[in-house]
Amino acid sequence: MSQVHAYAAHAEDAPLVPLTIERRALRDDDVAIDIHYCGVCHSDLHVAYNDWGSTRYPIVPGHEIVGKVTAVGKNVTRVAVGDAVGVGCMVDSCGSCAACHDGVEQYCLNGVTMTYGSDDRIDGTKTQGGYSSAIVTREDFVLTMPEGIELASAAPLLCAGITTYSPLRHHGVGKGHKVGVIGMGGLGHMGVKLARALGAEVTLFTRSEAKVEEARRNGAHHVVVSTDEAQMEAVAETFDFMLDTVPVAHDINPYLDALKYDGTHILVGLIEPVEPAIHGARLIGKRRAVAGSLIGGIAETQEMLDFCAAQKITCDVEMLDIKHINEAYARMQKGDVRYRFVIDMATLDA
Amino acid sequence: MSQVHAYAAHAEDAPLVPLTIERRALRDDDVAIDIHYCGVCHSDLHVAYNDWGSTRYPIVPGHEIVGKVTAVGKNVTRVAVGDAVGVGCMVDSCGSCAACHDGVEQYCLNGVTMTYGSDDRIDGTKTQGGYSSAIVTREDFVLTMPEGIELASAAPLLCAGITTYSPLRHHGVGKGHKVGVIGMGGLGHMGVKLARALGAEVTLFTRSEAKVEEARRNGAHHVVVSTDEAQMEAVAETFDFMLDTVPVAHDINPYLDALKYDGTHILVGLIEPVEPAIHGARLIGKRRAVAGSLIGGIAETQEMLDFCAAQKITCDVEMLDIKHINEAYARMQKGDVRYRFVIDMATLDA
Ligand SMILES: [Zn+2]
Ligand SMILES: [Zn+2]
Ligand SMILES: [Zn+2]
Ligand SMILES: [Zn+2]
Repeated sequence: MSQVHAYAAHAEDAPLVPLTIERRALRDDDVAIDIHYCGVCHSDLHVAYNDWGSTRYPIVPGHEIVGKVTAVGKNVTRVAVGDAVGVGCMVDSCGSCAACHDGVEQYCLNGVTMTYGSDDRIDGTKTQGGYSSAIVTREDFVLTMPEGIELASAAPLLCAGITTYSPLRHHGVGKGHKVGVIGMGGLGHMGVKLARALGAEVTLFTRSEAKVEEARRNGAHHVVVSTDEAQMEAVAETFDFMLDTVPVAHDINPYLDALKYDGTHILVGLIEPVEPAIHGARLIGKRRAVAGSLIGGIAETQEMLDFCAAQKITCDVEMLDIKHINEAYARMQKGDVRYRFVIDMATLDA
Repeated sequence: MSQVHAYAAHAEDAPLVPLTIERRALRDDDVAIDIHYCGVCHSDLHVAYNDWGSTRYPIVPGHEIVGKVTAVGKNVTRVAVGDAVGVGCMVDSCGSCAACHDGVEQYCLNGVTMTYGSDDRIDGTKTQGGYSSAIVTREDFVLTMPEGIELASAAPLLCAGITTYSPLRHHGVGKGHKVGVIGMGGLGHMGVKLARALGAEVTLFTRSEAKVEEARRNGAHHVVVSTDEAQMEAVAETFDFMLDTVPVAHDINPYLDALKYDGTHILVGLIEPVEPAIHGARLIGKRRAVAGSLIGGIAETQEMLDFCAAQKITCDVEMLDIKHINEAYARMQKGDVRYRFVIDMATLDA
């Protein structure tokens, strides 16, 4: 057992403040990691603010964790002291259900153990996330950071990266496909980069004329201003896939019209009722589908990291002193970040 | 050109009455068919009553047509005089677009020509359907009735059959799959029979306790009364596919909960807004999808007919004297038919 410094939320209406937490003694299959960087995901805010009603305080958010191994349990074989590693949204799962066997631990039939706010499967203690100086976790859920990847900007790949990569791969996106990406925040700008790197022709949909140039810089071949009806009509029945990263309710019907027959609209952010209602004829009349996708499995996350290293894809980040985490949250709520804050954990004890 | 007897709707609030219509002179690729039977589909009512706002009167409904070939154009090779044949929902398409090349003429990018209410692609005359003694149509859209199939009960296969068969095949339903079928009307009872014949374990969802025995007779392995919360909870995360044949708005969220991760809810009847709204988390959290499907292509329709003949699958029908067509419509609106009216066209001139 060790005491480590962290930042925690203590109540839904209180700022995050420093807290000393315990990290467990190494189990035989555990890896101890010194955290160098941790990305700040919108889920962190939702949990800190108890937006989903299930937060158990105090909670240390953070599931885009990158650092170096400082110790390993005696059964650990895949990583060694000094290795650069990552931890994403999950730290454990049952390992024996159909989903775990399929390598989609995020859909574990017995419930996945999330990086923060879950109960450890062995001792029942609450998991705490990456806004801290160190973490101890199972080797099977530790990712290896590929040679040459820049650690700070790789951190958000562990959530924003895999959340967009996984559905693109699951649906077989590649050369010859036209992909629309809706929204250009943390998820959307990764979606553009990844879809392009996978060989697709990518169109970014944004409500804001101001984002057109920025979208092109991120690799979008085309940009459609979604509030412009003429532009939307011009792309009717054009796309094979739509990657919808918008996290709040919005009308997806105009985007369904932009799909070819057999096209798929993929939701990765909208965990609310899909309102206004989807019109059934838009699905039936062209055999279209609306599908969801949640992060990605561990093996697929490793594949994504390796792909990003090979393709030199990183997340655009703004480095953050952890003492400014509450200001960062406020800015994120206004959409004022391009595209991800990453905490430099050296600032924790500075 | 020939004059044939038919029944037509002349206004949205008027009963169907006899009308003499013209059938075109045989083109080189045309087949002339004496209609023996025509199934009565809910779409017929919607068009007769102008529920979709696009009806051009007078209109002769009917797209579940079975009969015998009486003449063929000089380029016709696949069918001969005397053959038992069928005509379903489509009579023509562009033949050159991606959808036509893919064998999904129903999604023709240049607009499919429907059996009634469309404009003929060559002379622009309005197509008229199967509530008539004869039809003249393109060989490429004529189905061959397999040896041994009972013609009257095969008629509804041309719409109700293919509408349920196509999505089951498209999604690869077969042995090892658990399939839920929602609703037990014309489409639903075919869905049960076809999913079972394809090797799936089939559960019929019905709101009515009274339909349980009937569902089992139709081949359902299990029946769930969807209004019974305990029964719905007992099947949570159980199904690979849900075939939803209900044509009016209904809450699909409880059915999404009944899907496994990666499960697909297939809409074939709901051409209205999907209300109450689908909850995005139900799709994202388990990588589920909601998909639509519209009838099926011509080659697939032939495959379905051959499959039904081999498996001895027919639609349960109630034979109808065409003079009672308006009473039949009234009964259909009350759901009072098991499961399909089929007009015996011998009654037209009786
Ligand atoms: Zn996240
Ligand atoms: Zn599991
Ligand atoms: Zn029909
Ligand atoms: Zn076509």
